[in-house]
Amino acid sequence: MRMYDIIQKKRDKEELTKEEIEYFVSEYSADRIPDYQASALLMAIYLNKLTLNELAYLTNAMANSAYKLDLSMLKREDRYIIDKHSTGGVGDKVTLIVLPIVASFGVEICKMSGRGLGITGGTADKLESIVGYDVNMPLEKAIEQVKEIGLCLISQSGDIAIADKKLYALRDVTATVESTDLIASSIMSKKIASGAEKVLLDVTAGSGAFMKKVEDAKILANKMVELGKLAGIETRAVITSMDEPLGRCVGNSVELKEVISFLLSDEDRLFADDIKDLREVVFEVAAQMIKLAGFGDDIEINKDAIAKSIISGSAYDKFIELVKAQGGKVQNVHLDEYDTDVEMPVLKDEVSYLKEITAEANGTIVSIDGGKIGEALVCLGGGRNKKEDIIDSAVGFEFKKKVGDSVREGEVILNCLFNDKNKFNEAFNYIKDAITISYVDDEKINELQGKPYILDII
Amino acid sequence: MRMYDIIQKKRDKEELTKEEIEYFVSEYSADRIPDYQASALLMAIYLNKLTLNELAYLTNAMANSAYKLDLSMLKREDRYIIDKHSTGGVGDKVTLIVLPIVASFGVEICKMSGRGLGITGGTADKLESIVGYDVNMPLEKAIEQVKEIGLCLISQSGDIAIADKKLYALRDVTATVESTDLIASSIMSKKIASGAEKVLLDVTAGSGAFMKKVEDAKILANKMVELGKLAGIETRAVITSMDEPLGRCVGNSVELKEVISFLLSDEDRLFADDIKDLREVVFEVAAQMIKLAGFGDDIEINKDAIAKSIISGSAYDKFIELVKAQGGKVQNVHLDEYDTDVEMPVLKDEVSYLKEITAEANGTIVSIDGGKIGEALVCLGGGRNKKEDIIDSAVGFEFKKKVGDSVREGEVILNCLFNDKNKFNEAFNYIKDAITISYVDDEKINELQGKPYILDII
Repeated sequence: MRMYDIIQKKRDKEELTKEEIEYFVSEYSADRIPDYQASALLMAIYLNKLTLNELAYLTNAMANSAYKLDLSMLKREDRYIIDKHSTGGVGDKVTLIVLPIVASFGVEICKMSGRGLGITGGTADKLESIVGYDVNMPLEKAIEQVKEIGLCLISQSGDIAIADKKLYALRDVTATVESTDLIASSIMSKKIASGAEKVLLDVTAGSGAFMKKVEDAKILANKMVELGKLAGIETRAVITSMDEPLGRCVGNSVELKEVISFLLSDEDRLFADDIKDLREVVFEVAAQMIKLAGFGDDIEINKDAIAKSIISGSAYDKFIELVKAQGGKVQNVHLDEYDTDVEMPVLKDEVSYLKEITAEANGTIVSIDGGKIGEALVCLGGGRNKKEDIIDSAVGFEFKKKVGDSVREGEVILNCLFNDKNKFNEAFNYIKDAITISYVDDEKINELQGKPYILDII
Repeated sequence: MRMYDIIQKKRDKEELTKEEIEYFVSEYSADRIPDYQASALLMAIYLNKLTLNELAYLTNAMANSAYKLDLSMLKREDRYIIDKHSTGGVGDKVTLIVLPIVASFGVEICKMSGRGLGITGGTADKLESIVGYDVNMPLEKAIEQVKEIGLCLISQSGDIAIADKKLYALRDVTATVESTDLIASSIMSKKIASGAEKVLLDVTAGSGAFMKKVEDAKILANKMVELGKLAGIETRAVITSMDEPLGRCVGNSVELKEVISFLLSDEDRLFADDIKDLREVVFEVAAQMIKLAGFGDDIEINKDAIAKSIISGSAYDKFIELVKAQGGKVQNVHLDEYDTDVEMPVLKDEVSYLKEITAEANGTIVSIDGGKIGEALVCLGGGRNKKEDIIDSAVGFEFKKKVGDSVREGEVILNCLFNDKNKFNEAFNYIKDAITISYVDDEKINELQGKPYILDII
């Protein structure tokens, strides 16, 4: 078998065989195929697409090249091994909220999360804004922790998916990242290798996500659901809106604060209008996971139960249990709002500067470009340009106004937290570009305020 | 400017700017762009094609990266600097015959020819089957020779087209060779760099050529003619048939023998049926070149003059003058056929074995696959698999029968000349595969015998 012939076949839109795809994945993983041949094939795949057969072969070959996790010790009768994956976005802290909620229902989860790269943040990075939190726990210890408290949240080990890691690095420099085929096979190969029996996918769509268009997100979601089916994994996908940043905070420590605040909500706070976007996504994802896990077949009933879990404090307790189990430092804090003392994680949140970004004119905020806000965070040092970059956990943005809100000239739209004035100047250009204020009629305002966050369920 | 963005633009079918294409060519030539990015771009170009603008930018950028030849010393009033290029094929000895003919009319030509790679042979390799012939003559000496005898035929220096050389090597291993855009820009960039004012292109089509389909050959020819026009070079393309090997011989020394025999023809021999294919291509290409050079506007009158130049011996004399000027050894030989003594080049033509390949059944030869005959020659060592391969000048094939000829079982179709029995066994499979014998009716025989060799003129 020759790599040249494989490239030529895909170039000419012929279907590759299982053996050809396995040859490519295993030989490339073993450094026996040069990057320049792999990148030619990746571009041919990008442009000519993969058939469902090819996609399944690629996904399985990548799963097989990966180090398989043995989660069988977690397997119990009538319990499924559940996993969740988000395609990521700006301000996406859904995993950090959903997992404690779901775990408070008794669903056991051993979750591995990625690092952030480019505009999208990573759950593992966000957790590291908690002083002492250890994301690099060995798997055996992680499994022990799941047995004890039902939950662990660790960083994805680089060794798990060798082929995927090498291919991703190459795609990243050859403009072949945004291929739904390559994204689908990358994600699902890791889910298969992780030993999951049921998977909930949060597929984000919009300026702050990988998939800019909803149609592309749906194509991606359908492919992943199909791949899951072929691998015998029940897979459900929720398509969520990621145009403006999700929630009010973008950054690492600030997002942790938003997670804490969300999980500490009483009934009034939980159903307040200003957290509608985050609430809708969290409730949908958590309710679907609970259903997948066999803990409740009715999504609406699940959502009611989720609200109760939050309001009663049991979701927050699970969160604190998780933080402490993984070495995170906590302290007692008095909450004036609820007049109560709670344990709260200690965050790496000290910054030198806070700058209020204000409206330049009267009007309504018609859009906040998530991609540009993500870029601004990278400028501040809160995200990575290259994998080796070290993240500044404390920098970020706290939005006071969001899309659909009316503003007066000079009114604060967001606070920017930063440590380096030069970096701020660079970020400021992105922030200015990101926010569009216009005069619009009431009908438009209603449309902006009423826009859906759950775009589809597949 | 970033290579990533250039790949992404071409991937998304956006038109690249002059600056972007120049950046790619110059940075890649200077080893500042990695092969894996270049190959991703080449595949995107292969699949998404280039616009005429992009094609012109690429061609000029490659011409500019090349070492420009200064042929101005050859330039005289009312004389044009003429060049010729063939896209190559199996048994293609047209250049070796056409150039002495054209030079015998007073058209001056400083021709640089390539080496063979894969199934297509190279004129420089064929010349080296003459003992002593020096294809590596320095350019200054070559120009002196043109001034003296009106002709030189040397090997293309590797340094002339740096970008083209690097890109070709990469295309060769990434299945991006057969792109009409990349072939057109590669050929025309070298013609522009060579300082030609008028160019005749012999674009071959068929199983023994790069372009398997006539339509593709026409697309390629049109692109090159258009690129020539844009560069201010008058360019004409002759599309010629390259399905069965051209002429009767395939190999290096054997093709030289065929060249000599052709140029030594008397009137009967020159118009004999068995050299019809070679005669038609030679006459058309030579007549067009004479017209381009301003030595005769009427193609038919040119063809008559060409016949006279051959029959009178002046074309052959020019050929011998060329061989001697470049150090080739000649000796006096008595030709029984014409009962005369002539100077003839001494060839590296000693082989250990001659094997007659015979018909396996009665019938008519309906096809001889040029590509497979080319592969067979590579097997024998008469062609190259890799650039570094050393060629055996003496091996080759002499066809006694060609397409349209009827054969009886056991009748000789071709002689195979070789030096290594193992290599012959390998080659024999290709030869057997290449030749198809069937029972066909007279109408079909007439069609096979009357098939055209000049398919179009552009």
